[in-house]
Amino acid sequence: MREVFQQSLDEVRVRLVEISELVAEAMDKATRAFGTSDVALAEEVIENDPVIDDKTIALDELAIDILARQQPVASDLRTVVSALRISASLERMGDIAEHIAQLTRMRFPDRAIPKGLKGTFTKMGQIDVELARKLTELLTTRDLELAEEIRNADDKLDELHVSVFEKVLSESWQGEASATVDATLASRYHERFGDHAVSVAKKIVYLATGDWAPASEAEDD
Amino acid sequence: MREVFQQSLDEVRVRLVEISELVAEAMDKATRAFGTSDVALAEEVIENDPVIDDKTIALDELAIDILARQQPVASDLRTVVSALRISASLERMGDIAEHIAQLTRMRFPDRAIPKGLKGTFTKMGQIDVELARKLTELLTTRDLELAEEIRNADDKLDELHVSVFEKVLSESWQGEASATVDATLASRYHERFGDHAVSVAKKIVYLATGDWAPASEAEDD
Repeated sequence: MREVFQQSLDEVRVRLVEISELVAEAMDKATRAFGTSDVALAEEVIENDPVIDDKTIALDELAIDILARQQPVASDLRTVVSALRISASLERMGDIAEHIAQLTRMRFPDRAIPKGLKGTFTKMGQIDVELARKLTELLTTRDLELAEEIRNADDKLDELHVSVFEKVLSESWQGEASATVDATLASRYHERFGDHAVSVAKKIVYLATGDWAPASEAEDD
Repeated sequence: MREVFQQSLDEVRVRLVEISELVAEAMDKATRAFGTSDVALAEEVIENDPVIDDKTIALDELAIDILARQQPVASDLRTVVSALRISASLERMGDIAEHIAQLTRMRFPDRAIPKGLKGTFTKMGQIDVELARKLTELLTTRDLELAEEIRNADDKLDELHVSVFEKVLSESWQGEASATVDATLASRYHERFGDHAVSVAKKIVYLATGDWAPASEAEDD
């Protein structure tokens, strides 16, 4: 029974890695589309989001099936519940990539990226992609130092988020209202993506160490 | 065993109702604070948010305890998993009320509510409070017509969300960048609150009918 349970958990892990890879790819494409006003690439992200959603639903069904058939207790039970929460966060990270792609499509043929903030948003996008890739690696290797790196990268993201508001609210800001709206939304999306990554990383640390992280922590939307 | 399980589920339901009431109260206060620049009221919302978080964590522990001790299967199992997801959504709805309170405090002594949008935000706040109260009632009575009312109210909220962007992007918009930022964030918060309410309502319908709603549906943050 124990062996069957471990096999089931391995299957959960493989699927989480797969979803995490798709999220990293979606954010990479969304970021590039946003930076270059590439509407075809943006549409690719939007069209592919249901794939992430479907894989998340399938993973949740697997986790519920494990709960039903194998009735885990104690830390095994918490492990399966954590997997359900990780999948929910990954699914929302995919949605955020889609939102950034939607901003790009909405403004096309104009640029969605507001003037004077190109460097900042390029950096935010790079950090988000890096975060998603580190999550994939953390899920694969259980190298817990990656969780620390994810937290640090998220701190940088928070600083950039604050700097966007400082820029937009400064006297030198010449942007139209639409640029202000886009900067506000895009910055918020990037920041939320980072929050979810930190939240997932905490839960992976739990999967490895048994150190329980409540659902609510670091999920502040 | 069945009776014990039903008692446990009743306890889960009582606690969900309690959290839902706190969320409705938080949104009511946050909305009033936002509309009248009442910083003391805003601070009350911010200070009380950890109460909602703690109650959510305690409820999750109860649900995990039920899974461990009573090892439910089939629809009973899905009911407990749904409760975990409902609590996560309610917790985030509390966070959104806190964010609206934070906007109020950040702009004080200026008004956070942008000129020309007072009526719209008053209406959005009223709908959000109404949604949270209907959720409480739905959790209490299982009157499924309320779920339909919640969906309809959320549609109104989405229309108001679109109207905020139309206003802010219109030629008549005279707001400074800070007003544009506030309008964008506040409108997004209200809209997300509604999305979470619809998502919770779907899960309550499941609790009553066994009609399974996947985790990802209507959660698009």
